[in-house]
Amino acid sequence: MTRFALTLEFDGTPFHGLQRQAHGPSVQQSIEDALHRITGEEATLHSAGRTDAGVHALAMRSHVDLAKDIAPFRLMGALNAHLRPDPIAVTHCEIVPDDWHARFSCIGRRYLYRIVNRRAPLTLGRGRAWHVAAELDPLAMHRAAQALVGRHDFTTFRSVQCQAKDPVKTLDRLDVAPSAGEFGPEIHIRAEARSFLHHQVRSMVGCLKLVGAGTWPEHRVAAALAARDRSELGLNAPPHGLYFVEAIYPETGEETS
Amino acid sequence: MTRFALTLEFDGTPFHGLQRQAHGPSVQQSIEDALHRITGEEATLHSAGRTDAGVHALAMRSHVDLAKDIAPFRLMGALNAHLRPDPIAVTHCEIVPDDWHARFSCIGRRYLYRIVNRRAPLTLGRGRAWHVAAELDPLAMHRAAQALVGRHDFTTFRSVQCQAKDPVKTLDRLDVAPSAGEFGPEIHIRAEARSFLHHQVRSMVGCLKLVGAGTWPEHRVAAALAARDRSELGLNAPPHGLYFVEAIYPETGEETS
Repeated sequence: MTRFALTLEFDGTPFHGLQRQAHGPSVQQSIEDALHRITGEEATLHSAGRTDAGVHALAMRSHVDLAKDIAPFRLMGALNAHLRPDPIAVTHCEIVPDDWHARFSCIGRRYLYRIVNRRAPLTLGRGRAWHVAAELDPLAMHRAAQALVGRHDFTTFRSVQCQAKDPVKTLDRLDVAPSAGEFGPEIHIRAEARSFLHHQVRSMVGCLKLVGAGTWPEHRVAAALAARDRSELGLNAPPHGLYFVEAIYPETGEETS
Repeated sequence: MTRFALTLEFDGTPFHGLQRQAHGPSVQQSIEDALHRITGEEATLHSAGRTDAGVHALAMRSHVDLAKDIAPFRLMGALNAHLRPDPIAVTHCEIVPDDWHARFSCIGRRYLYRIVNRRAPLTLGRGRAWHVAAELDPLAMHRAAQALVGRHDFTTFRSVQCQAKDPVKTLDRLDVAPSAGEFGPEIHIRAEARSFLHHQVRSMVGCLKLVGAGTWPEHRVAAALAARDRSELGLNAPPHGLYFVEAIYPETGEETS
C-alpha cells in the first residue's frame, strides 16, 4: 500500500460537512467514491480537521492508502476529473511515509473567519462570508479576543455534541483585523491552535461580534470563558464565513511541536 | 422628479445582462420591478455600462428619476429589501442634479478580468474567474497588451453585434499582473478607457491568454489589431471572469475629461 497525502480545497455549501455522514452528502464520501471509480479500492480518507456543514476549506490536508500503482500527478488529475461537478479540488498530491497521518501528525490548525460589515446585502460574496449590517468595532473585538488566547477550559465555546474528552485547549492566536477583502472592506478573524473543540471558532467569533456591535462589553468574553458554561455563550457564528486555511506538520518546517 | 444615483454590485451569473432583455432576466428589470413595488412608478434605469450575460459588477453606476419623496438612505434600504433573493445590492444612493447622467456624464470605465491559473478546477472561485489550466506567462501578456493601449480602430476586438458607430476607441490602460487573489494566485487584467466596444475587454483578454500560453507570439496581438478584421480574433474570454469595477465622473475629482 502507498500512502498519498492530498491537499483539498472545497466549497462547503452543498455538503453536510467533511466527514462522512449517514444522512447526506459529504466531502469524504465524494472523494472515496471517486477513488473507488479510479482504483476499484474501498479506501478511507483521513483528514486533519472535521468541518461542519457549510464550512469551506482552502487547504485541508488528508491522506489515503492505495494498493494501485499510480503517480501522484495522475491520481490528482483523475480525482479532479471524477469529482466533477462537486465543488472539491485536489490542489496537491504527494506520496508520504506510512507513519505520516493527516490527523495525528498534524501539530497546528489555522482557520479564517470572514465578516462583511456593511448595510447592503451580499451578492458575489453570498455564502462566502457572514454579512453583519450593524457597524462593528474591530479594535474592540481584537482586544476582547486576547482574553481567549492561551491554555483554557473552553467549555463555554464548545458544542454540546463535542466528543473531545478534554475541554482544555491552547489557543495560540486569535487576531481580529480589517482586511481589504475580495469585494470591499471585510473583518478577518484568524485563529490558530494545535487543535480546536467542535464549534469553538464559530462560538468565539459569535461572541466577538457581540463585542464589536457594542451588545457585550469587552470584558464579558473573559467572563464567559471563566464561567465554563455553554449557556453563557452569546452567539454561534454561521458556518459559511469559516475557512479551514492550513494544517501544520513538523516536516513542513514551519513550526515544531 | 428627483434624480437618484445608485451604485450597484451584482453577481451576473443568473442574468442575461444588465440591460433589460425580451428573453430573460436582467439586472435592469429586477431593479425597475423593485422600484415599481416601492413607489408605484414606472421608472427607467440608466447605467454607465452595458454588461453581458454572466458579467459581474463591483460598482456599476446608474440613475433613476422618481416623483416619490423619499430619502436616499430609505430608498437604498427598500431596494435592497425588495431585490431579495436576486444577487443585486445597492451599496450607495444619493440625490444628484438633473443634468447628471449615469451613462452620458461618465468619462471613464474600469474593468477587471480575473484568471485563476492552475491545474486544479475551481471550487470557491467557480463562476468568479476564468480557470486556465495551461501555465501562463503574465509578463509576456503584459508586454503584448501594450500594443493595444492608445487610440486605435478596435474592429478585431469588437462583437459582430456591436452597435457603436465608430470602432475607434482610446484605451488608456491594459495592465496584466499576478495577484494574490482571494483563494490563491491569480492573474488580473485591468482595463480602462472612456468607453469600450461590445466584447472588447473579453476579446483582448482572450488574445492575451493565447500569448500567455505561448500559442501566439507577442507581436501577433499588434498584427491582429492592425488587421481590423474580426476573423483575426484568437479567442473571446468567457464572461464570468469579467467585473465592471468603477465608473468615473468629473465630479468625483478622480479625473477630468
